[in-house]
Amino acid sequence: MTESWVNSAQRIGVDLHLELSGPGGRRAALTRALRGAVRSGRLAPGTRLPPYRSLAADLGVARNTVADAYAELVAEGWLTARQGSGTRVAVGVVTPRSGRRGSAEPQRHAAAHVPEEAPAHVRGPRHDLRQGTPDASAFPRAAWAASYRRALLAAPSEAFGPGDPAGRPELREALTEYLARARGVRAEPDRVVICSGFGHALRLLFTRNTPGTPDSPDRPGRPGAGGVLRGPLGVEAYGLGFHRHLLAAAGVRTVPLPLDEDGARVETLGRERAVLLTPAHQFPTGGPLHPERRAAVIDWARAREAVVLEDDYDGEFRYDRRPVGALQGLDPERVVYIGSVSKSLSPALRLGWMVLPRRCVGPVLAAKGEREAWASVLDQLALADFITGGSYDRHVRRMRQRYRRRRDRLVTALAAHAPHIRVTGIAAGLHAVLRLPPGTEGPTVSAAARHGIALDGLAGFRHPDAATGRDAERDVTVDEGLVVGYAAPAEHAYGAALEALCGVLPPG
Amino acid sequence: MTESWVNSAQRIGVDLHLELSGPGGRRAALTRALRGAVRSGRLAPGTRLPPYRSLAADLGVARNTVADAYAELVAEGWLTARQGSGTRVAVGVVTPRSGRRGSAEPQRHAAAHVPEEAPAHVRGPRHDLRQGTPDASAFPRAAWAASYRRALLAAPSEAFGPGDPAGRPELREALTEYLARARGVRAEPDRVVICSGFGHALRLLFTRNTPGTPDSPDRPGRPGAGGVLRGPLGVEAYGLGFHRHLLAAAGVRTVPLPLDEDGARVETLGRERAVLLTPAHQFPTGGPLHPERRAAVIDWARAREAVVLEDDYDGEFRYDRRPVGALQGLDPERVVYIGSVSKSLSPALRLGWMVLPRRCVGPVLAAKGEREAWASVLDQLALADFITGGSYDRHVRRMRQRYRRRRDRLVTALAAHAPHIRVTGIAAGLHAVLRLPPGTEGPTVSAAARHGIALDGLAGFRHPDAATGRDAERDVTVDEGLVVGYAAPAEHAYGAALEALCGVLPPG
Repeated sequence: MTESWVNSAQRIGVDLHLELSGPGGRRAALTRALRGAVRSGRLAPGTRLPPYRSLAADLGVARNTVADAYAELVAEGWLTARQGSGTRVAVGVVTPRSGRRGSAEPQRHAAAHVPEEAPAHVRGPRHDLRQGTPDASAFPRAAWAASYRRALLAAPSEAFGPGDPAGRPELREALTEYLARARGVRAEPDRVVICSGFGHALRLLFTRNTPGTPDSPDRPGRPGAGGVLRGPLGVEAYGLGFHRHLLAAAGVRTVPLPLDEDGARVETLGRERAVLLTPAHQFPTGGPLHPERRAAVIDWARAREAVVLEDDYDGEFRYDRRPVGALQGLDPERVVYIGSVSKSLSPALRLGWMVLPRRCVGPVLAAKGEREAWASVLDQLALADFITGGSYDRHVRRMRQRYRRRRDRLVTALAAHAPHIRVTGIAAGLHAVLRLPPGTEGPTVSAAARHGIALDGLAGFRHPDAATGRDAERDVTVDEGLVVGYAAPAEHAYGAALEALCGVLPPG
Repeated sequence: MTESWVNSAQRIGVDLHLELSGPGGRRAALTRALRGAVRSGRLAPGTRLPPYRSLAADLGVARNTVADAYAELVAEGWLTARQGSGTRVAVGVVTPRSGRRGSAEPQRHAAAHVPEEAPAHVRGPRHDLRQGTPDASAFPRAAWAASYRRALLAAPSEAFGPGDPAGRPELREALTEYLARARGVRAEPDRVVICSGFGHALRLLFTRNTPGTPDSPDRPGRPGAGGVLRGPLGVEAYGLGFHRHLLAAAGVRTVPLPLDEDGARVETLGRERAVLLTPAHQFPTGGPLHPERRAAVIDWARAREAVVLEDDYDGEFRYDRRPVGALQGLDPERVVYIGSVSKSLSPALRLGWMVLPRRCVGPVLAAKGEREAWASVLDQLALADFITGGSYDRHVRRMRQRYRRRRDRLVTALAAHAPHIRVTGIAAGLHAVLRLPPGTEGPTVSAAARHGIALDGLAGFRHPDAATGRDAERDVTVDEGLVVGYAAPAEHAYGAALEALCGVLPPG
């Protein structure tokens, strides 16, 4: 088929014909045609594209077809979309016409030098399957803005002065109620301390130099002064490198605990002073900590006067059975419970919380400083309103359904296209682990990168001191694999990402 | 005069008569009567007081008289005010009826144990004349909420994903334009880095352990690894102890520069690697850095390949002559310019910025981490809208007028009641310095505290290594004094605070 784009093109001052031809449906053809027009320079950087409905009418296609094609090209970096200013050709795209790599033969030049993948200047991969980020396109803008406004207008004046480092009382009360109800956390508002995320919590607990305001001129932060907690710290053999590095920077030695199908083997804990666990959904391998191990680690902490740090990073997102309650509920005086809105709502808010054993509250507040120096007080007030008004529950419920559907689509796609690949850790969370045959993880991650797919192999999560391969005592269930985040893509981009993923998996 | 409070009391279920008698006007009498009712337990904690207009009608006084009395008692901590739930007797007030210190003789007990000052559980002094905080009651709630909503609805989806540690481009562009126009800063958006305030900026520049996300698994933060800048660092002989402690915690040695009437004596700089200055309005003594010294410190930095840190903490608030432009304008490659909204808008937002020499941008971003871990991205978007829409300028203009009036009232009150006290540093900013005779600073600060006035003496700002008293070469113009912040009280509470201040000054 061949169709022209005359009316819309005239409206935007571009003389251009689009040819909707070639393999695939109309959406694929339109995407290809637009991409070609940008690559060749016929659509110059900054040019505004016609609204969906105009182009759809001109081409005789459905409006959604145009919307999908635009979205795909935005994801690829060829176009940019901005509310209020429509969709435009990305500025900075290297095209013959933009003169960055001037050429007398635009078409050939483009074909030779511009890759199918996103242009180098544009951030973000074509298919984002990285773990750790929720669907940014699903942020509940209107409900959040309403909460923010309501909270701002109702706040007492002192809320706009220097903040209490514990956090706003409204938020600590709202979290106390919510965490008890949704996660089985046993909290009181005066044991809750607000922070700007999990990393901030770790810093407050372990950093030797007082990271906040020294609490008096007589007690300046001294290099070498002790943190609230001390190492050595037991950690799961697989976890976020960011956390390990942060702890290393604070001078805390970490000792890896082996993992098996029941989670971290906490019976290997010995002289550690604390242990950091992801009991609801081991990160990244995906299983919950077995109930016997939950009890055992509490027993260990009591016997050793040690502390368990509970990283409840995605506890709200459980799909196939009843939620695993917080470990903290077993002994609030032995567990530091840490959570944030980074997965449930957005990492853009920089809001997290700790529920602390009573004896830790004073030291943590002293480490934080005399005044709130980090977390936005106004966002704290908004979150309190968002929780107490029921919007947080509604949003979590909606996202749980969305992520569950995506999880199901991933499992279905793998069953159809790569039935030899085992997928684990899917009962909860925003990611799954695809187990790979020995020797294939590195090549698969590289192949994915070449195809514009961003994802992580398991290797990057492995503690450098963790045993690899077979363990003398028991099977080590984790070895090679891909950590596939299914939350990050916008809804319309997920299908293409799955398709691309299936295309790079090692053959059976 | 004796009046009863029957109607209102019935409405709130309290059987109570208020006696408006004794010295002073009706406002003082009503304040005294209400305070007495709370102290004696006749008004129980949590009791809701009648609306202004009802009580005013019942007592036959002006509505403002009631409003002022309530406000005074809120400031003292006896009452709490919350939009939507009215004014109530503070919960936690120790009264006979609350049973905390049970007594058979309420009246005598209250008289014996409850002080005139605010109850111990309540935060905040009766009269807050501390430096460093703007008038929290003047936060532009409606305009800010409008900016927030507008920014939120217009933001691209990626704004709700992981943030760029440089900060939102919208805000960096808005600041570039604003700082050039209002402060003479020579910036480009890609030399602006957003942070959560001045303390965060200092940490990013000097902390040895990488304080943010390590940028790759191969480069974990190491204890002992260098910060972006190094000491020794020249600092003004008077400054915030918080900054000195933070630097000490980062292992940075600070060397005090003497101050005279032209500001910091930068000619004493030698082998320091950097110097931290408050050129527009020396903190806390109050003068601007002399133009010759501005030039001299830039010359020094160029010759030594050193860096000047410019703390422009209140540069917008200048009353009596043209603004002193930023030192940064003299040499953007030798000056790190640091500002925040903490004085201009509110410390509750936790938003600040650095304008960096180009060679520092990469290292500061590496120190900050791979993703924004601190400053709320949504507040960043709101601030960008607030600036570009003109609301920021309007708010600063309004507050400049308000603070200028307060400054004038302070000067007038001192001229009338303590003409022997010299007041300096009043051409700009949110505080003034009252010079005191030798030996009187400590006793005056203590007397102020006894009278419920919170303020600081100069002693707490003096660098421990700074020479005190007379200097061999020149007069040291700073010795003993009070740092009086005139921004913190709400508008209605300022008069009483001034009056109380004048009552505790040493006699002439």
